[in-house]
Amino acid sequence: MSYDSQNIFAKILRGEAPCTKVYEDDHTLVIMDVMPQADGHVLVLTKEPAAEIFELSEQAAAACMRSARKAAIAVKAALGSEGILVAQFNGRAAGQTVPHVHVHVVPRQNGEPLRPHAAQMEDAAKLRAMADKIIAAWPR
Amino acid sequence: MSYDSQNIFAKILRGEAPCTKVYEDDHTLVIMDVMPQADGHVLVLTKEPAAEIFELSEQAAAACMRSARKAAIAVKAALGSEGILVAQFNGRAAGQTVPHVHVHVVPRQNGEPLRPHAAQMEDAAKLRAMADKIIAAWPR
Repeated sequence: MSYDSQNIFAKILRGEAPCTKVYEDDHTLVIMDVMPQADGHVLVLTKEPAAEIFELSEQAAAACMRSARKAAIAVKAALGSEGILVAQFNGRAAGQTVPHVHVHVVPRQNGEPLRPHAAQMEDAAKLRAMADKIIAAWPR
Repeated sequence: MSYDSQNIFAKILRGEAPCTKVYEDDHTLVIMDVMPQADGHVLVLTKEPAAEIFELSEQAAAACMRSARKAAIAVKAALGSEGILVAQFNGRAAGQTVPHVHVHVVPRQNGEPLRPHAAQMEDAAKLRAMADKIIAAWPR
């Protein structure tokens, strides 16, 4: 995938599109996925304009994982998830839908299949309530 | 999952079990997955004794992603993969099978489903040949 500065995550990072924000630091923005595969599904967006991990700097890749670790800790504590999947897709063949590097942090429960990727829009109030719980559990 | 120092990755890290090594630095060891979900499937093992990302230090998490990025670049270059999946499972509910933090780097081709996780042992000579190609393409 080639980088397109009009992708939805680039617009969110520039404040040109709305999001339900969970956390931000110098290198990443963590938001609720608006089409979650499970309740509490968050995305770590790199602030670097890179479509795939191959073009991402080593520093930005490391920063994504630091934020993904914090998100995993917070989501598990907030929602009591039995498991947490951390995943990052590069290329359509790997399931990538937005050409801007992002890491999925997805709660898993035994025997509960994931909902399809990028499929159904979640209710905004429910996302807000999830975000508030996750923010309250964010590691300091 | 609780940490068990007799897990297979801990044994590999101590040199008590064999592996097909691709790369090593102070914080990680990258090896071929012996039960690959696709040809070229590699694993990034943290050297820290942590079962899940929740117990892993921030520094070790970042190091895993630095090595996963390098592995993704090398695997794509070596095998001409259309996509690369980067994934890290925490807990049985998320598909984790070995209680030691590791990151999967898995080549994806359009329309080609993944083989089942941790299912069928690969031929050692084939793993060695894959590793040699990936080592040759490792970013400097």
